[in-house]
Amino acid sequence: MNYRMIFHTTGKVAIVLAVLLVIPMVLALCLSEACWWAFAITIGISLVIGLVLTLCLKPKTDVFFSKEGLIIVSLAWIYVSMIGALPFVISGAIPSYIDALFETASGFSTTGATILIGEQIEGMAKGLLFWRSFTHWIGGMGVIVFVMAIVSGATDRSMHILRAEMPGPTVDKIVPRARSTAKILYLIYIGMTVLEIIALIIAGMPIFDSVVHAFGTAGTGGFGIKADSIASYNAACQWIITVFMILFGVNFNVFYLLIMRKFRSAFSSRELWIYGGIIVVSVTAVAINITKQLPYTQNVGDGIRHAAFQAVSFLTTTGFTSIPASSSLDSLPLLTKGILFVLMFIGGCAGSTAGGLKVSRIALLGCAVRKELRRVLSPRNQSVVKFEGKVVSDETLRSVTSYFALYMFIIAVAFIVLSFDKAANLSVEANITAAVSCVNNIGPAYGVVASGYYMYNWASKLVLTVAMVLGRLEIYPLLLAVSPFTWMKR
Amino acid sequence: MNYRMIFHTTGKVAIVLAVLLVIPMVLALCLSEACWWAFAITIGISLVIGLVLTLCLKPKTDVFFSKEGLIIVSLAWIYVSMIGALPFVISGAIPSYIDALFETASGFSTTGATILIGEQIEGMAKGLLFWRSFTHWIGGMGVIVFVMAIVSGATDRSMHILRAEMPGPTVDKIVPRARSTAKILYLIYIGMTVLEIIALIIAGMPIFDSVVHAFGTAGTGGFGIKADSIASYNAACQWIITVFMILFGVNFNVFYLLIMRKFRSAFSSRELWIYGGIIVVSVTAVAINITKQLPYTQNVGDGIRHAAFQAVSFLTTTGFTSIPASSSLDSLPLLTKGILFVLMFIGGCAGSTAGGLKVSRIALLGCAVRKELRRVLSPRNQSVVKFEGKVVSDETLRSVTSYFALYMFIIAVAFIVLSFDKAANLSVEANITAAVSCVNNIGPAYGVVASGYYMYNWASKLVLTVAMVLGRLEIYPLLLAVSPFTWMKR
Repeated sequence: MNYRMIFHTTGKVAIVLAVLLVIPMVLALCLSEACWWAFAITIGISLVIGLVLTLCLKPKTDVFFSKEGLIIVSLAWIYVSMIGALPFVISGAIPSYIDALFETASGFSTTGATILIGEQIEGMAKGLLFWRSFTHWIGGMGVIVFVMAIVSGATDRSMHILRAEMPGPTVDKIVPRARSTAKILYLIYIGMTVLEIIALIIAGMPIFDSVVHAFGTAGTGGFGIKADSIASYNAACQWIITVFMILFGVNFNVFYLLIMRKFRSAFSSRELWIYGGIIVVSVTAVAINITKQLPYTQNVGDGIRHAAFQAVSFLTTTGFTSIPASSSLDSLPLLTKGILFVLMFIGGCAGSTAGGLKVSRIALLGCAVRKELRRVLSPRNQSVVKFEGKVVSDETLRSVTSYFALYMFIIAVAFIVLSFDKAANLSVEANITAAVSCVNNIGPAYGVVASGYYMYNWASKLVLTVAMVLGRLEIYPLLLAVSPFTWMKR
Repeated sequence: MNYRMIFHTTGKVAIVLAVLLVIPMVLALCLSEACWWAFAITIGISLVIGLVLTLCLKPKTDVFFSKEGLIIVSLAWIYVSMIGALPFVISGAIPSYIDALFETASGFSTTGATILIGEQIEGMAKGLLFWRSFTHWIGGMGVIVFVMAIVSGATDRSMHILRAEMPGPTVDKIVPRARSTAKILYLIYIGMTVLEIIALIIAGMPIFDSVVHAFGTAGTGGFGIKADSIASYNAACQWIITVFMILFGVNFNVFYLLIMRKFRSAFSSRELWIYGGIIVVSVTAVAINITKQLPYTQNVGDGIRHAAFQAVSFLTTTGFTSIPASSSLDSLPLLTKGILFVLMFIGGCAGSTAGGLKVSRIALLGCAVRKELRRVLSPRNQSVVKFEGKVVSDETLRSVTSYFALYMFIIAVAFIVLSFDKAANLSVEANITAAVSCVNNIGPAYGVVASGYYMYNWASKLVLTVAMVLGRLEIYPLLLAVSPFTWMKR
C-alpha cells in the first residue's frame, strides 16, 4: 500500500482546511468577535500538521489503487471532523470535545443533527455559526473533490478518489471522472449557491442568514441559526429554500447537460422523473393530511407550503423545518410522520449532495426485485432488466442489493447501541429515527430527540458521529479504513 | 396455465380443511359447547366447495410448473384463512368477519397477533380456542405439505409446491423434496409436539392448556388462552416452552439427520451454530438488562428465565410472553425492547416452522456484503464466499439480497398504510412494530398495539392480514397469484 501517498494527500487536506478556516476568522475579526483567535489557533494546528505531512512524506510513486483512494477519503473526513471541531471547543461555545466533534461531523456529513438547544444556537457568535454552516457547504460536494478541484495536480488516478466520495451507485456517468469533472461540478455548485443567496436576500432575509441557509441547502445539511429552523422566515423564503432543496437533490449531471444545452438527454434521466414523482406524491399526501389540521395550516396555501417544505426537506436529507417553534415534528399527524420516515430512507438523486439510499439505488433495488420475481415465475428464463435505457448487469444488481443489506445492518447496529443509553424519555421510536436520521444524513428525529441530540450520552454521540460519516461516504471507505485487514495486507 | 389442476388441488385442500374441522367440532360436542354447530356448518360449506372443485375440475394433464405451484399454495392459504374464519363468525365469538379473518390468517400464518382482548380470550368456548391454536399447528408445517403428506398421490411435480411453501432460502437440502419428505417432516413434527404436551402435563399444566400451547409452540405461532399469555404458568412450564420454542426454530433437516444417527452432519450445520450464538448473546444481554430491574425479576434465576423466554419467543417468531399481566411489553427496559425488535427480523432457521428472514438468509446477506467489500477493495479480484461448506453462487446471493429488498419494501408499505389509521394513541413505534411483527409472523408489537390489534380499523386489519400471509409464504407466491400478468399469459 502506498502509505506515503495516503498521508501526503491527507496533509494537503489539512492545508486546505486551514485556508478554509480563514474565512470564518476574517468574519469574526470584522464583527469584533472574540472567537477569531479560536480559528487562528486551529489554523495554526492544521497548517503545522499539513506541512509536516506533505513535506516529510513525499510519495515515491504516484501509483495507487482503489484501496488507497478509499483510505484517503476516510482519513480526510476523519481529519476535517476532528480538527474542524476545535474552534467550537477553544472558543468555549461547545465545551465538550465529543459534542463539538458530533456537531462538526454532522456539518461535514451534511446531516444537520445538532447537540445544541435553541438558545445556544441563537446566542452563538456569528463566526462560529458561519463555520458551522460552511462545513455543510464543503461537505456537500465532498472534501477531497474540493481539494482536487483547487489543489491537486491529479490525473487519472483521481478517479478512485472521486468514485469513493461521490454519492450514489455508478450507473450512468456522463462526464469522465477526473479533475475537470470536479471543477465543473464545483462551478455549478457555486453558481446555484449564489443564486439562492440572491433570491433569499430579495425575499427579505438578512444577508448573513441568507448565506448560511444557502450553505445549509446546497449541502443538503440543515443547520439553521434560529431555534425554530426556517419557521420564522416569511413564506417566500420558505418557498425559495424548498425549490433549492429540490434542485440540490438532483443529479448534477442533469445541470451539466442543461448547461451544454442537451435538453433531451437531461430530461431523459429516469431517476429525475422518479425523484419528481416521489416529490409530487408525498407533498400531495402530506398536504391533504395537514391542511386545516394544524394551527399553522388553516388555509390550503399554508398546508401546501408546509407539506412541500417538510417532505422535500426529509427526502433530500436536508432536515430544515418550517414548523413553528410552539409545535414540534412530533405534533404532526401520524400519517405525515410515517411518510416523512419512509422518505428518510430514499434520499436525493445519485450525484447530488443529498444523502440517503439515493433514488437510483431504490430504482435498482426495484429492478433486482423484478428480475427475481421473473426468475421465481419461470426459473429457466434468463430475463434482463433495464434502467436509464441500459441493461443492468447482475453485478450491479448484486452490488446495490448487498449495499442495501449492509446499510440496514449499520442502522440496526446504531439502533442497538443507542438502546444502551439510559437517558430519560428515550423510546424505541426516538432511537430508531435518530439512527435512521444520522445514517441517512438528515438531522431531525422523532420523540425526545426532536428537540436535539443533547440528551444522548457521549458513547451514543460517538456512535452517531461514526454513523453520519459512514452514511455520507456510503459505508465502504470508512469500513475498509478501520479494518485491520486493510492495513495488514500489502 | 393448468387451471384445472390448480382448482382441483384447491378442492382437495377444502376437503382436508373440512376433515380437520371435525376435531374441534367433536371436542365442542364432548364439552357440550354450543359452538359445535358453527363447525358443522363450516364443514358442510367446505365439503361442498371441495367436492365441486375436485369432481367438476378434473385436470386433463398433470403437467405443471413452478408458476402453478406458487398459485396453488397462495390459493390454498387464502382459502383456509377465509373458510377457517367462519366458525368464529357463525358462533358469534368474533362477530366481524374481517376480525375473524385476521385472527384465522394470524393462526395459519403462525403469527399469533390477536384482535381479541384478554377477557374475550378467556371467555371463549374451548372448541373455538382449540381451533384457534390448531390453525398454528397446521400452518406451521404448511397447509399444502399437510395435504400432500396425507392425500395427494403426488410425484416429482410436488417439488414445485414444497419449494413454494417451505420457508427459507434453498441452500442445503438433504432430503430430496417429494412426498416422502413431507411425511418424514410431519412425523418429526408430530413427535416433538407430543413430547411437549407430555412435558407440560408433567410440569403441572392442565391437559387442554398443554395441547393448545404445544400447538402454539410447534407452529411458532403464539396464540395463548390466557390474557397474560404464559405468565401465569409455573417456571417449569415456561422453561419447557422456551426449550421447545428453540427446537421448533431449528431446521428440521437437523432432526432428520439426528434420527439417522448422522450426528456429525447434524452438528456441522453452520446455521445451527449461528442460531445458537444469537440465542446465547441475546439472552445474556437481556438477562443482564432486566435482572433486578423489574418487579418480577428480583433474582438472577427469574431474570434469566424471563430473558430466555422473551428473547427466544421473539427470535423464533412465536410471540408468547411470560411477562405478568400487571406489566406489558412496554414496561421492559429500552435495551431489551431494542434487542427484541432486532430479533424480530432474524427469525428461526430455514426449514423450521419459524418466520422472519431466517438465520441462513441473514448469513447469506452477510456473505453478500463480504463479497461486495472485497470487490470494492480490489475491483479486479473475483473472490468466492462459502456457506455450509459450499461456494455460494452469485445467483443465490442476488436472490437472497433481492428478497431482502422486497421484504423491507413490504414492511414499508404496510407501515405507511397503517399510518392512515386514525385510531387514537397509535404512534410511529406502534405502527412500525405492528408491521414488522405481522410480516415476520411474530404477533406482539409495542406501543398501544401491545395490548392487541383491536384498535386498528378494518382497512389496517386487512392489510396486516395480507402482510401475515405474505410473510409466511415468503412473499413471492402471493404476489404472483394476485398479479394480473400471471393470469393473462399462458
